[in-house]
Amino acid sequence: MSCSTAAGGAPRPAPEPSAPDHVRMGVGARLTLHPATDDFVPVILSALSAARATAPGVTVRTDDVSTLLRGSEQDVATFVAAGLEHAARITSTGHVVATLALSRGCPGEVGCDLPAGELVEVVPVHLAPAGLHASAHWALYPLGTADAMGPILAAIDTAQRRGTYGGAENFATRLDGDLADVLATVVDTWTGVGREVAHVAAHATVSVGSPSRRGDR
Amino acid sequence: MSCSTAAGGAPRPAPEPSAPDHVRMGVGARLTLHPATDDFVPVILSALSAARATAPGVTVRTDDVSTLLRGSEQDVATFVAAGLEHAARITSTGHVVATLALSRGCPGEVGCDLPAGELVEVVPVHLAPAGLHASAHWALYPLGTADAMGPILAAIDTAQRRGTYGGAENFATRLDGDLADVLATVVDTWTGVGREVAHVAAHATVSVGSPSRRGDR
Repeated sequence: MSCSTAAGGAPRPAPEPSAPDHVRMGVGARLTLHPATDDFVPVILSALSAARATAPGVTVRTDDVSTLLRGSEQDVATFVAAGLEHAARITSTGHVVATLALSRGCPGEVGCDLPAGELVEVVPVHLAPAGLHASAHWALYPLGTADAMGPILAAIDTAQRRGTYGGAENFATRLDGDLADVLATVVDTWTGVGREVAHVAAHATVSVGSPSRRGDR
Repeated sequence: MSCSTAAGGAPRPAPEPSAPDHVRMGVGARLTLHPATDDFVPVILSALSAARATAPGVTVRTDDVSTLLRGSEQDVATFVAAGLEHAARITSTGHVVATLALSRGCPGEVGCDLPAGELVEVVPVHLAPAGLHASAHWALYPLGTADAMGPILAAIDTAQRRGTYGGAENFATRLDGDLADVLATVVDTWTGVGREVAHVAAHATVSVGSPSRRGDR
């Protein structure tokens, strides 16, 4: 569940008012890397290690399903980009997919009834071009609000303006471009919605090096 | 975006009032299979072929990122279970992950302002035991409603009652059990929320045969 800590875990003390924005806003991500290779274990471990070295500010906890990332939006974006790029470069087949879920404002972490003044502005992330083409299916979920479509349309406008918009699909929007641009679009639109809505989740399936082409079958 | 057809595509005619519930409710899924093997292409193609044969009522369209499934909740569940089970059985390493997104009531497909009488009751799906253990991270998103937490708590109760609840994680709930039970929990809670909220998305990362154990690192 997106807000499981509220439901299943012990109540947590609220973060200090002086805590960094990303801590007060319950910012974090879940990342699963899927290198298409027999030797997936060393690829995943090496990719996570490279990502840790690139974004040392991220708190990382890996279990058998995914890796939990806690940190600022910039640090989490840097971690994901570095991990996926590293995995793609060392996977023998060249094909790696990442399943990424971003979350902010979760009721289990901090209240979702934050006053408007608490909705923080996050500067766009900066990711160096990866030199790898990525294709993604992306979904954005503003939660606890009757108008989910307004922020979604604004996010699609952002993707179009950035040149990463790849078309409307059923249940997803397609993104295409350099891996860095695709990830930055996912992160920046998620933080953009966060200026209007406290609890926002974003999911993306990001594929690098697929032997299939768009609309193959 | 979850509702991209509304935003990016041409307007669609509304389904006939006499259309099956799942058509009127815009029911469907996106599935990506990630077999951890060098020979991922034949595994994916064989798994999708086996799933089509098991659930011939599903309309299937595969591109380079994921496979779009349209059909009744039972048919979509049967397809996903058959595809993942087949992939796990023929993958040399035994490790396969599925990224699954379920959607219903999307504004791009049918209106999300359906009158209450239009929220259909869907019978729980029946999936034969797979004999394969699965672990999942699961998130459920009731959209366009101020109270997202009520339906989420009810869904967690359902998972606990069924014995698939594996604990609260950050940004996800863990599910464990036979692959069939895990998938049925994801599908039935999604349709359960759909009795109260028109637009509901569910995401799950479902792992079979991971060499890591829970809380490994």
